Amino acid sequence: MQLPDLSLTELAAAIQARELSPVELVDAVLERAERTEPQLNAYSAIDADGAREAAHAAERALAAGRDAGPLAGIPVGIKDLIDIEGRPTGAGSGVRDGHRAEKDSAVVSSLRDAGAILLGKTHTHEFAYGLITPQTRNAVNGDRVAGGSSGGSAAAVAAGSATFALGTDTGGSIRVPAALNGVVGLKPTYDLVSRQGVTSLSWSLDHVGPITRTVADAALALSALTGRRAALHTDLRGIRVGVPRNYYFDRLDPQVERAVLAAVDKLAALGATLVDVDIPMTRYLVPAQLVIMLAEASAYHEHTLRAAADLYGEDVRGLLEAGGLLGAGEYLRGQRARTLVREAWSGLFTEVDVLAAPTVPITAVPIGQENIVWPNGEVESVTDAYVRLCAPANLTGFPALSVPVGFDDDALPIGLQLIGAPFTEDVLLRVGLAHEEATG
Amino acid sequence: MQLPDLSLTELAAAIQARELSPVELVDAVLERAERTEPQLNAYSAIDADGAREAAHAAERALAAGRDAGPLAGIPVGIKDLIDIEGRPTGAGSGVRDGHRAEKDSAVVSSLRDAGAILLGKTHTHEFAYGLITPQTRNAVNGDRVAGGSSGGSAAAVAAGSATFALGTDTGGSIRVPAALNGVVGLKPTYDLVSRQGVTSLSWSLDHVGPITRTVADAALALSALTGRRAALHTDLRGIRVGVPRNYYFDRLDPQVERAVLAAVDKLAALGATLVDVDIPMTRYLVPAQLVIMLAEASAYHEHTLRAAADLYGEDVRGLLEAGGLLGAGEYLRGQRARTLVREAWSGLFTEVDVLAAPTVPITAVPIGQENIVWPNGEVESVTDAYVRLCAPANLTGFPALSVPVGFDDDALPIGLQLIGAPFTEDVLLRVGLAHEEATG
Repeated sequence: MQLPDLSLTELAAAIQARELSPVELVDAVLERAERTEPQLNAYSAIDADGAREAAHAAERALAAGRDAGPLAGIPVGIKDLIDIEGRPTGAGSGVRDGHRAEKDSAVVSSLRDAGAILLGKTHTHEFAYGLITPQTRNAVNGDRVAGGSSGGSAAAVAAGSATFALGTDTGGSIRVPAALNGVVGLKPTYDLVSRQGVTSLSWSLDHVGPITRTVADAALALSALTGRRAALHTDLRGIRVGVPRNYYFDRLDPQVERAVLAAVDKLAALGATLVDVDIPMTRYLVPAQLVIMLAEASAYHEHTLRAAADLYGEDVRGLLEAGGLLGAGEYLRGQRARTLVREAWSGLFTEVDVLAAPTVPITAVPIGQENIVWPNGEVESVTDAYVRLCAPANLTGFPALSVPVGFDDDALPIGLQLIGAPFTEDVLLRVGLAHEEATG
Repeated sequence: MQLPDLSLTELAAAIQARELSPVELVDAVLERAERTEPQLNAYSAIDADGAREAAHAAERALAAGRDAGPLAGIPVGIKDLIDIEGRPTGAGSGVRDGHRAEKDSAVVSSLRDAGAILLGKTHTHEFAYGLITPQTRNAVNGDRVAGGSSGGSAAAVAAGSATFALGTDTGGSIRVPAALNGVVGLKPTYDLVSRQGVTSLSWSLDHVGPITRTVADAALALSALTGRRAALHTDLRGIRVGVPRNYYFDRLDPQVERAVLAAVDKLAALGATLVDVDIPMTRYLVPAQLVIMLAEASAYHEHTLRAAADLYGEDVRGLLEAGGLLGAGEYLRGQRARTLVREAWSGLFTEVDVLAAPTVPITAVPIGQENIVWPNGEVESVTDAYVRLCAPANLTGFPALSVPVGFDDDALPIGLQLIGAPFTEDVLLRVGLAHEEATG
């Protein structure tokens, strides 16, 4: 295993112990990026000089015995929707040509404070409004989509061209690409991680969170983002894992189903109690998330769309125009449904501690594929399929963690999604970590 | 002064000291109602038997030395928009014929716990969607409007047919009738007092609060509603009173202006520091409140309006239909403007502790008058005029207190509005009390 493939936890520990130089790590990761980028294209911009300079500064601080932060010398990729002072936030859009962020977003500022090194900006689906990230290829199989909208972040982490990365998630945009690239993606509880300085897609559904190679890494990154340190352990005794009878296993690839259920069985073997549960209010989940997103996104882009519609890509322009036609009543119906869904789901989480479900119903599709034909002949767009099992956690704002749990016959990664009650990230991370440690 | 005209504070103290019997008080207030109701029509229903029974129970409890609550034996009027178990919540609407509330609203439950006696339901403008309350007459002058939408509550308190009353306020509906009837109205900070079991007009603008005869009474009622007891005093040293240079004094009756400015001078004489301030973002205040209210009210009534439009009064039906035509973008523009307004106003309240302003720009108009012609020839609807100076505190959710500060040449009451930062009800009550005690 090479330096860029080690976990954030291992690398941070080695740096703190002065066994590894930040300069050495940053050089190795930049070298990896140089090798992978021509095919992968995870980054919209890499700041090699800035990163090397920061690595030298970190090295000097550590040599002088100063506290350089828990993430000292760790190279991080920042989704190009998140502001870094003095650099453009391209958002994957022609609309942003010539943009320059005036100050750091809150999350970038937290990572800087923790000592992390900003390696570059990672590609996003235009304004995070899509599940593909067409600029970027899947890190496991270059003929497949990276997923999105945080496709660049997930691909970079999977390929070792970032030790970890930040993504955003409005309908699955952290978890989908994490699952499709075989890495860990954490969408924290709504409002736990600041959205300040992050371009909004739909402010009441938007979340910022880390994409990492291990669950322990996700915990470490989250603690840098929130300032709270969780005590990590892997004892699953007393943990009630809800296994949905409906919705989450209704329509999915049998190989995905098998891998997820095997992971659930593993959790039971590790001491967790499995509880069959009924998911409430399923017919509202996707429509409510969709109408809220459509309306808020169109409100956010209203002026730009009027001034410069042709600068948007065709798919995003279409969505923005569609959202502009919604009535206030339709939006409010979505928000009112959301209130009822949130209440019903809060009740569900009195019966279980976490829900275990697939992250996405299918692995990474070939680039260019637009639809999935299910065995019963039903046709679903790839986008709808990738959103379907992720959107509920955006609507409720409840935390959700995607962890890799194996591969299908095409060696494409499969993701297990763990969903918890508000502010129970520690429980999700505990369950994820127990599975990760048990499976290797 | 007769028993029904004494303040809540005096009456509660007399009952606690066993100098006054709850039965005597309830009988006196019922007698007053019997005399005033034929003309005033403040109540949609009076539960004389239930009130007498509760008064006897309170008397027995007090005689037995039991703690009967701080409001033991005090007769209260409940706006007919607020649920009382087993009784109809008529909401002033034909839509509610045959309605029966399944359980107490949270505020009624709190008042019961405090020992208050539910005397009856007071008239509201239909679904609180208007500033007149056409069923009810002004308590000071029967040819004038009571104001609304909590017109019944304010008129009853002013006439002594309730010792205090509950109202709701979405664009001024507590403060406007309080000002027009010469009593005290408190719209607390958004969410401080529960809206559970209260029919919604516009859930993000709705507030529940007390209407009383004195400021000390408002403090006592609020503490029963929230469980928090404020230390009341009248020392105004160190209190910075903001006097708006713009907006609040832009277009109003000179007699109202004179009375309000005299009250402000009185505050200065009592030790407060006057600070001239500019009200920020004034062009958004009324339009944002209006679009949010229109959209939310129409969403709330959507199904009923479709099923039984003819059961609504013409004015309310028109408003509900208009709100149904709003786009999601218009609603969201209102909500986004509100966010900016709230930020700007939070800044304002770093410079001052309270704003002093008129509650309404004109006193109670004659029944049937629809418009006001201002000296410059501008025509404003009575509704718009009554909303104009109250709506900002609904948009921001900041607390606002209306206190009587004199009369115009027609002997019609004038209201001073005190507005504070979130959860500074104690400061508003302190300033109001100081003025009240100084002026007698």
